[in-house]
Amino acid sequence: YQESLEYPSKWLLDVWKFAKEDTDRVTFALKVGLACLLVSLLILCKAPYDIFGTDIIWSILTVAIMFEYTVGATFNRGFNRALGSLLAGIFAIVVIQVAISSGHIAEPYVIGVSIFFIGAITSFMKLWPSLVQYEYGFRVTLFTYCLIIVSGYRMGNPIKTAMNRLYSIAIGGLVAVLVNVLICPIWSGEQLHKELVNNFNSLADSLEECVKKYLNDDGSDHPEFAKTVMDDFPDEPAFRKCRATLNSSSKLDSLANSAKWEPPHGRFRHFFYPWFEYVKVGAVLRHCSYEVMALHGCLHSEIQAPYNLRCTFQAEILDATNQAAELLRSLGKDVSNMKWSLQTSLLNRVHSSTERLQRSIDLHSYLLTSSHEQHDPSTKPQLKQSQTLSFNQKDCLAQSADQDTSKIAALPSELGRDTSIKRQHKRLHSWHDVGDFEDGTVNVIPRMCALESTAALSLATFTSLLIELVARLDHLVEAVDRLAKMAKFKPECAI
Amino acid sequence: YQESLEYPSKWLLDVWKFAKEDTDRVTFALKVGLACLLVSLLILCKAPYDIFGTDIIWSILTVAIMFEYTVGATFNRGFNRALGSLLAGIFAIVVIQVAISSGHIAEPYVIGVSIFFIGAITSFMKLWPSLVQYEYGFRVTLFTYCLIIVSGYRMGNPIKTAMNRLYSIAIGGLVAVLVNVLICPIWSGEQLHKELVNNFNSLADSLEECVKKYLNDDGSDHPEFAKTVMDDFPDEPAFRKCRATLNSSSKLDSLANSAKWEPPHGRFRHFFYPWFEYVKVGAVLRHCSYEVMALHGCLHSEIQAPYNLRCTFQAEILDATNQAAELLRSLGKDVSNMKWSLQTSLLNRVHSSTERLQRSIDLHSYLLTSSHEQHDPSTKPQLKQSQTLSFNQKDCLAQSADQDTSKIAALPSELGRDTSIKRQHKRLHSWHDVGDFEDGTVNVIPRMCALESTAALSLATFTSLLIELVARLDHLVEAVDRLAKMAKFKPECAI
Repeated sequence: YQESLEYPSKWLLDVWKFAKEDTDRVTFALKVGLACLLVSLLILCKAPYDIFGTDIIWSILTVAIMFEYTVGATFNRGFNRALGSLLAGIFAIVVIQVAISSGHIAEPYVIGVSIFFIGAITSFMKLWPSLVQYEYGFRVTLFTYCLIIVSGYRMGNPIKTAMNRLYSIAIGGLVAVLVNVLICPIWSGEQLHKELVNNFNSLADSLEECVKKYLNDDGSDHPEFAKTVMDDFPDEPAFRKCRATLNSSSKLDSLANSAKWEPPHGRFRHFFYPWFEYVKVGAVLRHCSYEVMALHGCLHSEIQAPYNLRCTFQAEILDATNQAAELLRSLGKDVSNMKWSLQTSLLNRVHSSTERLQRSIDLHSYLLTSSHEQHDPSTKPQLKQSQTLSFNQKDCLAQSADQDTSKIAALPSELGRDTSIKRQHKRLHSWHDVGDFEDGTVNVIPRMCALESTAALSLATFTSLLIELVARLDHLVEAVDRLAKMAKFKPECAI
Repeated sequence: YQESLEYPSKWLLDVWKFAKEDTDRVTFALKVGLACLLVSLLILCKAPYDIFGTDIIWSILTVAIMFEYTVGATFNRGFNRALGSLLAGIFAIVVIQVAISSGHIAEPYVIGVSIFFIGAITSFMKLWPSLVQYEYGFRVTLFTYCLIIVSGYRMGNPIKTAMNRLYSIAIGGLVAVLVNVLICPIWSGEQLHKELVNNFNSLADSLEECVKKYLNDDGSDHPEFAKTVMDDFPDEPAFRKCRATLNSSSKLDSLANSAKWEPPHGRFRHFFYPWFEYVKVGAVLRHCSYEVMALHGCLHSEIQAPYNLRCTFQAEILDATNQAAELLRSLGKDVSNMKWSLQTSLLNRVHSSTERLQRSIDLHSYLLTSSHEQHDPSTKPQLKQSQTLSFNQKDCLAQSADQDTSKIAALPSELGRDTSIKRQHKRLHSWHDVGDFEDGTVNVIPRMCALESTAALSLATFTSLLIELVARLDHLVEAVDRLAKMAKFKPECAI
């Protein structure tokens, strides 16, 4: 805050960027100004003021309270306000009849008791889970009821008061709705559509970023492990975006809730457009994101596979990742363009690259568990021979076989090149040391010890998570397929 | 809805249960009723009405709009309303002076333009991310400004109008605050405290449930894989609760936002109580939950480790899980009782049981990768011998060594008992078949193929995730420790 006072030009620049980032924000602000101005004209000009009288100020209140960012939300709020006012009016008229017929002395008591009960009942009902979304409606019912019945009691002719107020509320609501719909409307549906596409892209980005970082990470640049859980990961923008998406999971829900109030518009031309399918696709995407969160956990885990081991499977891991990210992006693009081509070939490619990864892991699985054979060199050649034997018996593609053999040949030399291994060791040890050091004092939390020997299995975990992510992509494709059918996306020939 | 009409008694029972589940709900409803009644008395009784006049209806509006569930939220809303009204009043007075001095003809134009700008500026500002929480304040500023300036223009003496309205708003606000604070107050702080403790317990429950299910799952009762991602998992209540917690991650945030408005109360006796530390602990808990989500993903993954393999490590996995769950529960209990004993011994026990699990996996890692040696029996004895050799060289605890040897002896016989293996195979194959069948038609999504051979590695994944979860518990203990220090929890001797 202080900073922004010190640099007014920087502050102005921020505002400018914020406005430019999404020009709808400016549109919205100008629309609110316009709606308020239009309603005020009813009072500022003499002719309408003479007709409506002072009750017209209620229309200003209505515009200020009802005007929401999107068309759907405005409709929703307007519906709440209208129904709430209507119910309040009916209750008020009934209670007033009862109060009048109960005589002059009992009247204020009847009114007081009714206010108490309406207050208690509406407040209790708005806590009910399925009614929470109509919270505003209950609030409106309560205060409209109180206003009508109390001012009716003091000023007489309650029905005329109620009607006048209803007129001005209706005028305010009408102005709000017309301005919102006719001038550069901001549709919840459009926002929901864009948000879902963004979710696809952010998942693809964070997957790629995470895998890239995992493969490039040689264990040298981890200043402190202790803080990573709560870190902001400044060098991982895509991950932060993905986490933010996970944390704001209710956004799709509320957008879909607003979108169902909107008439057919723009690209969404048929009635009963399946907005809630968007929410379902979003939920499947979220399930995929959990796997990315787990992958990210692997990346920042204290127990790490050696760098050279990760390099061994680099090609397969990268291939599977890129294919998966491409599938995600093309799904996002399909949704974005409202076209639908069942991405069979792409999906098949993802599967085959993942199967290649699986097979490679399978063939070299001895590497994952060989860590204590390293301590016992006598067993190692034996093991490797048997491995090579069984490998030769397999009927693999010639090319992949070539790759694999070269790997087996390359690995010992890589193991020989210990710089990265030493770094890895140093890393494990320095971290151990911190734990030991801290254990010296009483008031310190003991830390989990990483057993070096299982470190290699962490690679298996990483790949398993990647494979599980790919398996979930099937469900994602299915969900998008369902959405495409229900929303009648234009079918396209499969490429 | 129809159902509830058909069974009014069932419906009443639901309401009764809902009220009994949390009696605060009833208290809140009755308090709203009472506050409305108190304010209405100002009009219903003759004496105060004669003093305040018709403007007093604004106090009813204020009560209905300001009364929130918790004390903190009411204060927050009251603050928004007060500041918003004040700002609006100041703007209005300034603009009125300008308008009057600009002459009779220009006056309505000045007023109209000012309304437009105030509308546009407040609407734009409330979109600014750090100001979103004051959304209500901006709304109040807008409509109060419009009301004051417009009615001032028509009715003359705008300052008197503004003051009268301010009085009645202040009275309404005062009634709302007094009723909220003095009669059975519902504190956001208390709710936040309880919510955090619940999060601890739900995480512990879902962890235990997930692991238990993983170890008991012999692959026989999976009717359909395709639906599991979006399933509701009706037989896993704890998981659903944990997922719901993840999806409503903003709840802690909004409670903390309210809690900071509350004066010291109940158990939270000192000023500047660190409510935002609760949010931080919640964030670390969420990071632990992501691991549980990944574990759950493993449980429902299509690629599964054979049942007997899972049985092999059952004791260690169960032990680590139980220790971790116990640690979580005791952390939750500590927070709940506002006591703090650094759970060193418990944490050490978690670590040692996890290390035992790691060591066991390490010793038997050949089991995880032996799947294609099974196809090639000649290599298997060799491998096992070398394994046993290297195992004998290790200096382990005698007891754990005993356990391990018995396992190695037990495994072949378990492998011989193929019923569960056959089931496993059948499961993999039936699923393959579905894929093949579906591939026959064009319009169908190809499915990921599970390579049986890497299936065993899924156990490594499961345990790695479990170990990573335990590693994250360190951060959790640290976060709780920080909270305990800042919130001055009563220290207790470590047990």
